[in-house]
Amino acid sequence: MEHAIIVGAGLVGSLLSVYLAQANFKVSIFERNSDPNQINLQVGKSINITLCERGFQALDAVGVGNVVRKLCIPLYGRIVHSQDGQCTYQPYGNNQEAIYAIKREDLSQVLLDFSQKQENIDFYFQQKCIDIDLQTTTLKFQQLNTGAITKVQAQRIFAADGAYSAIRQKMQRLKRFNYSQEYLEQGYREIIIPSNRERSWLLEKNAIHIWPRDNFMLIGFPNLDGSFSLSLHLPYVGRISHESIKTHEDIQKLFETYFSDILPLVKSSLQDYCMKPIGDMITIKCFPWTYQDKAALIGDACHAIFPYYGQGANAGFEDCQILIQCMEKYPGDWQTILQEYEKSRKPNTDAIAHLCSEHFRILRKLVGDPNFLLRKKIERKIQKMYPEYSSLYHNITFTCMPYAEALRVEQKNRAVIDKIVAIDDVEEKLDTPEIGLLISKLVRNVKAPVLARV
Amino acid sequence: MEHAIIVGAGLVGSLLSVYLAQANFKVSIFERNSDPNQINLQVGKSINITLCERGFQALDAVGVGNVVRKLCIPLYGRIVHSQDGQCTYQPYGNNQEAIYAIKREDLSQVLLDFSQKQENIDFYFQQKCIDIDLQTTTLKFQQLNTGAITKVQAQRIFAADGAYSAIRQKMQRLKRFNYSQEYLEQGYREIIIPSNRERSWLLEKNAIHIWPRDNFMLIGFPNLDGSFSLSLHLPYVGRISHESIKTHEDIQKLFETYFSDILPLVKSSLQDYCMKPIGDMITIKCFPWTYQDKAALIGDACHAIFPYYGQGANAGFEDCQILIQCMEKYPGDWQTILQEYEKSRKPNTDAIAHLCSEHFRILRKLVGDPNFLLRKKIERKIQKMYPEYSSLYHNITFTCMPYAEALRVEQKNRAVIDKIVAIDDVEEKLDTPEIGLLISKLVRNVKAPVLARV
Repeated sequence: MEHAIIVGAGLVGSLLSVYLAQANFKVSIFERNSDPNQINLQVGKSINITLCERGFQALDAVGVGNVVRKLCIPLYGRIVHSQDGQCTYQPYGNNQEAIYAIKREDLSQVLLDFSQKQENIDFYFQQKCIDIDLQTTTLKFQQLNTGAITKVQAQRIFAADGAYSAIRQKMQRLKRFNYSQEYLEQGYREIIIPSNRERSWLLEKNAIHIWPRDNFMLIGFPNLDGSFSLSLHLPYVGRISHESIKTHEDIQKLFETYFSDILPLVKSSLQDYCMKPIGDMITIKCFPWTYQDKAALIGDACHAIFPYYGQGANAGFEDCQILIQCMEKYPGDWQTILQEYEKSRKPNTDAIAHLCSEHFRILRKLVGDPNFLLRKKIERKIQKMYPEYSSLYHNITFTCMPYAEALRVEQKNRAVIDKIVAIDDVEEKLDTPEIGLLISKLVRNVKAPVLARV
Repeated sequence: MEHAIIVGAGLVGSLLSVYLAQANFKVSIFERNSDPNQINLQVGKSINITLCERGFQALDAVGVGNVVRKLCIPLYGRIVHSQDGQCTYQPYGNNQEAIYAIKREDLSQVLLDFSQKQENIDFYFQQKCIDIDLQTTTLKFQQLNTGAITKVQAQRIFAADGAYSAIRQKMQRLKRFNYSQEYLEQGYREIIIPSNRERSWLLEKNAIHIWPRDNFMLIGFPNLDGSFSLSLHLPYVGRISHESIKTHEDIQKLFETYFSDILPLVKSSLQDYCMKPIGDMITIKCFPWTYQDKAALIGDACHAIFPYYGQGANAGFEDCQILIQCMEKYPGDWQTILQEYEKSRKPNTDAIAHLCSEHFRILRKLVGDPNFLLRKKIERKIQKMYPEYSSLYHNITFTCMPYAEALRVEQKNRAVIDKIVAIDDVEEKLDTPEIGLLISKLVRNVKAPVLARV
């Protein structure tokens, strides 16, 4: 029986352990934190996760999907709150498709429980990785409460130890390792809307709520217990920023001016706002992801992304599935398995990283922007004419189309919409035969590519 | 008297020490290598450096320019060797402007000698930086032959310790530090053409020689002793690559096929070709460059670039000058000095990094490409009509225009040339009044921007 070590028992580490155990591996997972809940309390990890088609596909493949579904709230669209208190509802799909909100700690707990029920998986908590010898696949861990040092060795090492991966830091010193870490110029603090007395929701619960304010925004997710987790995303410096909002009075004023509709619901939660830590957001890219036939990075360790497309966990889960597919395709040939894994996965995680940083701008700016709304309207018009036409959001969220492919489709779709949006008074003419004719001409021109394979 | 520590006694560290000493600092320089020559023998540093206007301006400002000039060979253009042995001469400027070739070790020695002659500069060799406390500006060094550890502290720390900077690695762990390292997919090995018996040159000495072969290239610089340093730039993997050229027979064959004109001159040097180390090339970007009022990165430590524009040393020297200008502008206010330094410098080093990786493609591909040559021809035509029109190469090399400004000017110039090059049979029509008219119309349209301020 082959032995694999997984570093990190977060979302991706736990799921990967199940995949490997089911593929007949003996698995040892080493985790720095003392217990599952702590893993998820790190600053910079949002409390709420949204799962979508590709995430569930990876969960279903090992049989944990339905347990997870029970802890999710379906979200069918976003409700945009404008400054004057008006709300606009934007459905995510045309056919009642939903994304699924779940608390990070709930998801983590379910995956850990599921993993611990498998045979051949051993967990070691409070183990900090202090040294790595890639050549001999040997790791040194320090038990954090006793100080005891253990040396462990296995045939394969998988680093699921997140954006600040210790294994990646070691690989970074290898020859010709490309690496980048880039922080977003904004960070967030969390604000809770408690449930009402009947443990139900004070806002519509089957939607994400968003208050886009151009250079900053508030965003809210429902929790199963009737509460809502909001996060206020501000630039670090500037007129309205973490630097300028320093006191309870400052934050109170900010809400009075920009988020007055929600103020009554968060008033008590604002008391300790300024004491809360600020979550940073980072994009990490690197290559290679693997070392010979011995070690591989997986999840945030090789492709941390901004949370704005709700894809972080989904992308990490998909990594596990792709890795297993490579194992099935090249049984026992680990050099090829790992090379194929990184080669097929890298363009896709680069694409989603790009889309996440773009979506950050869309959410805080364009969601409330007339031009954005017009483009959405044109898109819906095209969709009505061509039901097989699929938007970027659809392809990313409701299909398992590779991210890079979804990006290519989108670039072609955008070129079509660019041409339609350029027509004078197009909004009024949208239902005229002329525009219909133009659309069919443009769509026919790009033919197959614009009509995404789902 | 304020005390500054400089980590690294390479080109930039030495020059900076002089700048600081002349600004009335007590300076301690710590260098890992045992003596100046070793500093420059690191793999991945090309033997030859070219100095241009901005480099000399920074050297002249402290009075070392003329000593350096004596060790330089002026290069007035490049000689392109095609595969059939034909040579084409491309002058760098329109008025006999030159760039200046110097051996890295000669330049380093001159700067070290000059620095050691200043008062208040102390050198410590074989000192490896093993720990850094940015908050207290304290550094720990280990003497490499005795193992003795010294702790040193100063008001300011300057990290001129190159692309693999220890200080930057420490800063990388600070909150919200953006960082990227990206290796070129090609590396080089060096090949020497010895001087002839009369210690003179076997190729035209006042030019760079270049053998562009699309996906790879050979490039040669004259040395003062009559020899030439060639470097063969190959992809790491592929049909013609470091992977495929493994034996003396392989390299001999490569030269027979692609560089036959030069083969007789390098025959003996090819004997040990395969034993030589491969030089990697890396682009490093990061931000911030400074820590509070305490520490600053300088030179390759914050902006290592590919060597293809001959700008590495020039950019590092310019850093020193900009830093001193900030010191003069905000006397004693180190928080502002360091902030201004990084803020004003970063867009410029980003611009030159971009241009270097672009120039790599130009050199190996376009220098021998008809379209490239036609564009150059059009550019020369515009220059004849508008003597104040200046090319990108001119602005980068023969002026001290900020790199980012040179890039902006170039983008506008390119748009003009794009329009002219699109005309059918433009090459034949180049001297007709129609084309002249079009050029003046286009140039007038972009007006001032296209005519760079020199």
